[in-house]
Amino acid sequence: MSRIDAQLAFLTEADKLKTILRGTTLCDGSRRENSGEHSWHIALYALVMAEHANRPVSIDRVIKMLLIHDIVEIDAGDNPIHGDHDPAEMAVMEQAAADRIFGLLPDDQAQVFRALWNEFEAAETDDAVFAKSIDRVQPVVANLQTGGGTWPEYKVTADQLHTRVGVKVQKGAPAIWTALKVRIDDWFAKNTMH
Amino acid sequence: MSRIDAQLAFLTEADKLKTILRGTTLCDGSRRENSGEHSWHIALYALVMAEHANRPVSIDRVIKMLLIHDIVEIDAGDNPIHGDHDPAEMAVMEQAAADRIFGLLPDDQAQVFRALWNEFEAAETDDAVFAKSIDRVQPVVANLQTGGGTWPEYKVTADQLHTRVGVKVQKGAPAIWTALKVRIDDWFAKNTMH
Repeated sequence: MSRIDAQLAFLTEADKLKTILRGTTLCDGSRRENSGEHSWHIALYALVMAEHANRPVSIDRVIKMLLIHDIVEIDAGDNPIHGDHDPAEMAVMEQAAADRIFGLLPDDQAQVFRALWNEFEAAETDDAVFAKSIDRVQPVVANLQTGGGTWPEYKVTADQLHTRVGVKVQKGAPAIWTALKVRIDDWFAKNTMH
Repeated sequence: MSRIDAQLAFLTEADKLKTILRGTTLCDGSRRENSGEHSWHIALYALVMAEHANRPVSIDRVIKMLLIHDIVEIDAGDNPIHGDHDPAEMAVMEQAAADRIFGLLPDDQAQVFRALWNEFEAAETDDAVFAKSIDRVQPVVANLQTGGGTWPEYKVTADQLHTRVGVKVQKGAPAIWTALKVRIDDWFAKNTMH
């Protein structure tokens, strides 16, 4: 198989990410967001929000990570942050998915893409930490735009939102969390039963 | 308004790109593709296909261009390459859209994003030429995956495909067109009435 044939096979397989539905809706609430358009949106978020990284990052590497970060969902599915899935079981499924899907590329590219995905998953480098922060920001904004979005459905509390989302956003982009927290606290103040 | 507020306003407006439907379907033919997921897919195409640029390009700049290239469609709509629209009228609409939408960003970013979009539209730099080539490749692959896709609907001939698509792909990425042309010629040989 030629390099271009292998590349086209990978890119055609990647098309399936457009059919994986996430827990969050579009900002107009009209339908669930898919992981393909989500990947575009957070790459754009990273480009626009780069200045808020709390450590120096290569925004070009961050964008590449975000473009490929969800591709394993083609086999492993999306797991909403507020849902209940077994993290160990998910990790095994996602590793197998990464083997299969990145393995469609020519060998040299498969290794580069897999290393970049591994780096994102490990969330240890500054680039990966910022990428993970941005990945957590966009659903919060969508939920705020749609009157809490899927928070009521998942029965999320303000404390849970801080633990599951806030801590991770603060790690890479604290200024963004500070700005969002005002809006989040406002929403929970208005929508929590006392 | 704070910088973050302006950036979030832009990013929330950009969400609407997920509701703009294109002439092409997903590779499984299940539904029309939207311009948000298309933007993700071609950014990934550029990342994977960078080696086929016929002149040296900065792939990071190409990816940034592709992430923002369709945002004007939020106001101006998508215009299928095989459709019949007035190019001059479209250009006026798209300029106004670029003013409004990039204008939501903080001034310094608005200028940077607008300049990058202008460069893409002008299609004169090597980065823009390659970005335009990649933008033309992905719908051809989707159409080939779906038995001709929307070509029969738009009554496209092999000659028209070469003039409207092939010439532009050849300008930035001739090796990709060579690979696709084999598949295209095969499709038209099997599906053209004699």
